[in-house]
Amino acid sequence: MFPAPLAVVAAVAKSNESTCQLAECRAMSSSRPQPQSRDGYRAFRAIPTRWADNDIYGHVNNVVYYSWFDTAVNALLIERGALDIHQGDTMGFVVETQCHYFAPIAFPQTVDAGIRVAHMGSSSVRYEIGLFAQGSQQAAAQGHFVHVYVDRQTQRPVKLPEALQRVLEPLRG
Amino acid sequence: MFPAPLAVVAAVAKSNESTCQLAECRAMSSSRPQPQSRDGYRAFRAIPTRWADNDIYGHVNNVVYYSWFDTAVNALLIERGALDIHQGDTMGFVVETQCHYFAPIAFPQTVDAGIRVAHMGSSSVRYEIGLFAQGSQQAAAQGHFVHVYVDRQTQRPVKLPEALQRVLEPLRG
Amino acid sequence: MFPAPLAVVAAVAKSNESTCQLAECRAMSSSRPQPQSRDGYRAFRAIPTRWADNDIYGHVNNVVYYSWFDTAVNALLIERGALDIHQGDTMGFVVETQCHYFAPIAFPQTVDAGIRVAHMGSSSVRYEIGLFAQGSQQAAAQGHFVHVYVDRQTQRPVKLPEALQRVLEPLRG
Amino acid sequence: MFPAPLAVVAAVAKSNESTCQLAECRAMSSSRPQPQSRDGYRAFRAIPTRWADNDIYGHVNNVVYYSWFDTAVNALLIERGALDIHQGDTMGFVVETQCHYFAPIAFPQTVDAGIRVAHMGSSSVRYEIGLFAQGSQQAAAQGHFVHVYVDRQTQRPVKLPEALQRVLEPLRG
Repeated sequence: MFPAPLAVVAAVAKSNESTCQLAECRAMSSSRPQPQSRDGYRAFRAIPTRWADNDIYGHVNNVVYYSWFDTAVNALLIERGALDIHQGDTMGFVVETQCHYFAPIAFPQTVDAGIRVAHMGSSSVRYEIGLFAQGSQQAAAQGHFVHVYVDRQTQRPVKLPEALQRVLEPLRG
Repeated sequence: MFPAPLAVVAAVAKSNESTCQLAECRAMSSSRPQPQSRDGYRAFRAIPTRWADNDIYGHVNNVVYYSWFDTAVNALLIERGALDIHQGDTMGFVVETQCHYFAPIAFPQTVDAGIRVAHMGSSSVRYEIGLFAQGSQQAAAQGHFVHVYVDRQTQRPVKLPEALQRVLEPLRG
Repeated sequence: MFPAPLAVVAAVAKSNESTCQLAECRAMSSSRPQPQSRDGYRAFRAIPTRWADNDIYGHVNNVVYYSWFDTAVNALLIERGALDIHQGDTMGFVVETQCHYFAPIAFPQTVDAGIRVAHMGSSSVRYEIGLFAQGSQQAAAQGHFVHVYVDRQTQRPVKLPEALQRVLEPLRG
Repeated sequence: MFPAPLAVVAAVAKSNESTCQLAECRAMSSSRPQPQSRDGYRAFRAIPTRWADNDIYGHVNNVVYYSWFDTAVNALLIERGALDIHQGDTMGFVVETQCHYFAPIAFPQTVDAGIRVAHMGSSSVRYEIGLFAQGSQQAAAQGHFVHVYVDRQTQRPVKLPEALQRVLEPLRG
């Protein structure tokens, strides 16, 4: 009577796999990637879902995934001493975000967010994130965002602070 | 003494323009597009910002833009009779989303969301959305999402319902 | 076939009326108020619902109403020149919030938020808000929040700024 | 240079204590309660904050606390087998919510939500929740919500399901 959330997820993931193989779906999407595995990421952070993450269709809404990107990366930077969101002189300015969705997630599941740094420029960083249902080796969704670091007052691009570079280096992958 | 939000936005947009011209920024992003104008879109919907849209840095957070994509497209489909989110047999399943950001927006501004349908497959639709600050002809951000329509019970892809096709046709662009 | 949202709302509101008359409901709630009418409020602001406002049960989630309280009051204060959220020396610190719910609201409805100032202290204000479905004279929900104005640096209470007092005075009711 | 979030919180909490003692604050609030301790609650759930929880003022926005109420209680009910949000015949309808705020919380802190059942009627439950910063014995905020359980189809009140009663009983306090 009481469906286990994981069973629901598995069923929909199966449906989704066929979705991904639709020729039209591939045609419409410049590059429909394959879901990656956990070993493609350098750091992980557990994010429990919340009631409000589910939308009317009963799964976590596509928008929420991006809030997890922000949460995973910024929490990591703060805890490793590379970002001070209250008093810091620089802040990350997002110029591009993207996400591919492979399998639904639903409250009350917990998600593991995998993080890696795909590119570091002089003032910008491309963060790539994979979201994994706990117990699953294959990403339920994966995406990226590009941060340009700017001076908080002038809002013009600045060189990546050294403390940030030190934290990002081991995340490259 | 009291800075007009529009002045702030203009200042940051200017900073952002130079951001977009950074070679590294272009290198990191597969395709850094130019901001489009309003005439590239087929329908518009005004979306007032909310207090919670601003994040700690004082501008609308990058995640919120996607909630406007959902809101603009689904409200249009509901009001034109093509979508019944409560009792409908089919629902849109998001498989991919993307957004490029050109200029910040901040509460309490109102945004005009421009909508067009870039591609219709047998069971999927690519919606493209441009977000314009009121009074501006150039997009502050633009992006897309791909919906695969699935049966609400089986969650497997279905042909686009005819009522939906009729509503989407004039939105092509 | 396609249920008008207003019909749904009316049906549920009716169910809700009986809910409110349950003796146990009255007993559990220190003071179950009656829904107020529009003429109890001094200013109004239209707030269109968003896709994400609906939760899995198909109506706007109870939490969202509070985001509308914040939005309606702060937008009014900003537009009337009484609040500068970016550079101002003072900010409102919320110490108490409450809401009573009488009838559901659902995306894509638009809500009118009625605002009045119930009390002004030396450094605090009690704002009362009624939320009305467009076309309805009776509040779908009503509540309040208490702001204590504090210095942004020291975060200690300060006298209500004169510009704020001038804007609040005509909102008393 | 890099302020520990806990230090910030402590400083503001101190400021807040004096806030609570303001006569006008007490006058405006029907019943300004004292922050409770952890032993007043029967079950706990850790909720990590997210980036988007902080608003422009750098602390978790007052609205977010209510999303934690929903999350803590519903996750508990689901995990203990008393609630099926996807297929269940009954759902909780919120008729009243309230929260008192004593000390700020800020991303990336983790909060412990304490839960107790203050009253069970024939079809309704009053849940009381205390939110504690990890490491703190005193609530940063506390509040309640009243759920009336209704039939999902008719949306009319129903008796509390037995499975729910069994889960709620040990939470009374």
